[in-house]
Amino acid sequence: MNVPGPLNPPVRLLLGPGPSDAHPRVLRAMATPLLGHLDPQFLEIMNAAQEMLRSAYQTKNQVTFPVSATGMAGMETCFVNLVEPGDRVVVCAAGFFGQRMVEVANRAGAQVTVLERPWGEVFDFQQIRETLQKVRPKLLAIVQAETSTGAWQPLEGLGALCHEFETLLLVDAVTALGCIPVALDAWQIDAVYSCSQKGLSCPPGLSPVSFSSRAVEVFSKRKTKVQSWYFDVNLVEHYWDSDRFYHHTGPITMVYALYEGLRLVLEEGLEARWARHRRNHEALKAGLKALGLTYTATEGHQLPQLNAVRVPPGCEDLPVRKRLLTEFGIEIGGGLGEFKGKAWRIGLMGYNSRPDVVLLFLGALEQCLTSQGVKVQAGAGVAAANRTYLG
Amino acid sequence: MNVPGPLNPPVRLLLGPGPSDAHPRVLRAMATPLLGHLDPQFLEIMNAAQEMLRSAYQTKNQVTFPVSATGMAGMETCFVNLVEPGDRVVVCAAGFFGQRMVEVANRAGAQVTVLERPWGEVFDFQQIRETLQKVRPKLLAIVQAETSTGAWQPLEGLGALCHEFETLLLVDAVTALGCIPVALDAWQIDAVYSCSQKGLSCPPGLSPVSFSSRAVEVFSKRKTKVQSWYFDVNLVEHYWDSDRFYHHTGPITMVYALYEGLRLVLEEGLEARWARHRRNHEALKAGLKALGLTYTATEGHQLPQLNAVRVPPGCEDLPVRKRLLTEFGIEIGGGLGEFKGKAWRIGLMGYNSRPDVVLLFLGALEQCLTSQGVKVQAGAGVAAANRTYLG
Repeated sequence: MNVPGPLNPPVRLLLGPGPSDAHPRVLRAMATPLLGHLDPQFLEIMNAAQEMLRSAYQTKNQVTFPVSATGMAGMETCFVNLVEPGDRVVVCAAGFFGQRMVEVANRAGAQVTVLERPWGEVFDFQQIRETLQKVRPKLLAIVQAETSTGAWQPLEGLGALCHEFETLLLVDAVTALGCIPVALDAWQIDAVYSCSQKGLSCPPGLSPVSFSSRAVEVFSKRKTKVQSWYFDVNLVEHYWDSDRFYHHTGPITMVYALYEGLRLVLEEGLEARWARHRRNHEALKAGLKALGLTYTATEGHQLPQLNAVRVPPGCEDLPVRKRLLTEFGIEIGGGLGEFKGKAWRIGLMGYNSRPDVVLLFLGALEQCLTSQGVKVQAGAGVAAANRTYLG
Repeated sequence: MNVPGPLNPPVRLLLGPGPSDAHPRVLRAMATPLLGHLDPQFLEIMNAAQEMLRSAYQTKNQVTFPVSATGMAGMETCFVNLVEPGDRVVVCAAGFFGQRMVEVANRAGAQVTVLERPWGEVFDFQQIRETLQKVRPKLLAIVQAETSTGAWQPLEGLGALCHEFETLLLVDAVTALGCIPVALDAWQIDAVYSCSQKGLSCPPGLSPVSFSSRAVEVFSKRKTKVQSWYFDVNLVEHYWDSDRFYHHTGPITMVYALYEGLRLVLEEGLEARWARHRRNHEALKAGLKALGLTYTATEGHQLPQLNAVRVPPGCEDLPVRKRLLTEFGIEIGGGLGEFKGKAWRIGLMGYNSRPDVVLLFLGALEQCLTSQGVKVQAGAGVAAANRTYLG
């Protein structure tokens, strides 16, 4: 065959639901020559990455490490380790990723009860309490930041509620970590998974997970083997703990990326990072409103890092996204599932949550909407954002 | 917590069983800013990478793509897709990775028959024929390049033999691809998995797999769902084929790496690359013999890319490897399983299969052996290698 030419991708600004742009320092870290996956120096890097991950997750959980695959693998890791065939599981589904948990739980052999809310809404604890009382599940699973709707599910108090019924709490924090608080210990979360390519501003390829001692006890006392060898935490953990037992070859460069991504998170400080996401979200939201757009998630439960808005009446989805991409190199997300063709998803995650990004995006969107015949007040988006920033 | 300092790993020469050093061009590719995982430009890069992967595997198989995780995930992908609970599987095990296939096949619900040979030997087809006749399995699994022993299992004709009994042939090519021939179509291999961090000179993190039309038919007609959602080829394939259906977020940077790694393979040419591995192996082998070392694999079945030799009598394993690492920054592998403490595994894989590497290593090993009181003729290793190179 003819050998293709060198890699020469166009420059993009990734403002979709993820991947978000990797931070330049992370990209530089990825060009670092390899260490062996059992090299004493690499083990030190692993230790430091784990310790930083515990800080980011606000936990003292011993079993905290990145699964060597993408976010969806973290979801599967949590289910296949905590569930044995026949176990009762409640999944709270108010969007695409809640629904996906149902599928993954089913494949792990769970008897799944699905608790539903309309897309864009969040669950209230009374509804959850009633279900826990009725079903008495081993595990309740819920999405903190539903990437398909932009809804922010409150979690404070949910762990305690689950524990009243001897139920484990599993949280999908894929779009949350590094953008909004994920307080594992304070909120008594038993299992969590996230990803590298959103709030941590690394490329996709790792799924940071963490398990409470309650969860560890559950999977250390399993009667059946975990169906997946690759995702068996009892095995993987021997590589990440002080045993350093060979399980699989760690994805060294991705661990370098995570190391640098977490350094950036902790240098900034968690509180400052959340405040930054909040501030840029407020400016973006003011601008989007000024352009006539409305959010799909309930007011008061909108994620700062993932702004999902309705495609305005009379406007087509694809031409706007295409013009954003070709004229400005800006990628935003289309709708998923129920929202396909009906929503845009605008991510301001990690490194990309910046005032310059907000102003550029609002200016570009105004041009794209106008070119599609949508009536918008010229300059209104940028003006509203600037008023918010100047406060 | 105190934020750890910047990444600053020591420089290593990775001559173990893998990871091997990433090629400098691959490292540079990894610092490339991200594209979205559904960006039209990224889809073109995926297409080109797939096409190059087919060339490297010498196949026209449509279903050829890298699993978004490390080599062991490729093993699991093959078993969980091809095996349904209760299916009969024969695993040929003459080393650590053969044994591991037994474990992974068991977790997929297979009824496993293990065909064994002493570590370091290879299987003859008569033995396999008898087992196929007796067991009539759905699948036979075998390791082409057994990383724990350095044995090179011949495969030509094995596919035809398996098909006589309507058995699928699954091959572990983790340590083979990019170093020695892996001729999927000519050898009628039905399923194969490999890795990125050995013969392809990329970092660990991807597992290239390929399935024959026979294998595709088997998993498209399954009666049960694949137990793993993440590794379900029927789902993943929709992302890699022209549908581009969202399954998980592709590990973009690792795909960049694979793209560049495969470009290097095809620029060199497969035949030239195999010849290079052979030539440097012969020089290394001459040098190792001159230093008094013997191979663990049967003569005539020794892998050029993974030279496993016995730790010489009276010599301790660890002090030699430690001195290689601290004095020279050279990593080699220790023994695995039965060979723990008794073997060294010296990899000359991909980019690292070079004359300068061979001479440096032999000189360094001579110093380390001498420092441990092993009697070696001064300069004998390098001299023997040079004689081989000069022919």
